[in-house]
Amino acid sequence: SPTETQRCIEFLITVFQKQGGKESYSYTLSKTEFQNFMNTELGAFAKNQKDPSVLDRMMKKLDLNSDEQLDFQEFLNLIGGMAVTWHESFLEVAHSHKQ
Amino acid sequence: SPTETQRCIEFLITVFQKQGGKESYSYTLSKTEFQNFMNTELGAFAKNQKDPSVLDRMMKKLDLNSDEQLDFQEFLNLIGGMAVTWHESFLEVAHSHKQ
Repeated sequence: SPTETQRCIEFLITVFQKQGGKESYSYTLSKTEFQNFMNTELGAFAKNQKDPSVLDRMMKKLDLNSDEQLDFQEFLNLIGGMAVTWHESFLEVAHSHKQ
Repeated sequence: SPTETQRCIEFLITVFQKQGGKESYSYTLSKTEFQNFMNTELGAFAKNQKDPSVLDRMMKKLDLNSDEQLDFQEFLNLIGGMAVTWHESFLEVAHSHKQ
């Protein structure tokens, strides 16, 4: 049976395709699909941003080839970026306990 | 409650730290810890490689700063690379059905 890591990788593919399937070309995320993904899957992060332009700026930064769509690699950079940010905030907490 | 995406991101942090904690500096993966991760979490991939040097070559490619350790960002590139490869093989299958 698949390991947790395999399930996590398969999930990332599924959630990308599910979200990306809402408009015509289903293997990328349009700006609306990206915003919808952020609000539904990462609402805790998306909803407590005071500045409403944060999602627009994130999309521009992630959209490396500026085609107004996020392909799967660009989407993974979003997931990776979130993971690195949370990991770093974990390190700060762990570090402050050592002092 | 956390969404599946949040659980997946949290899992990637946890599996990295669990695997990385086996030797001294617990926030990176040594070569042995990387091989152990591959065999336990991605055994289906790792074990059907005919060429035993595949894991060594993967480690070298992932170890961008050549410090013989994988930090969290380098580890995420591993996960991302696997996800992109599986996603592409999915696209080939989907594409071949359309013809």
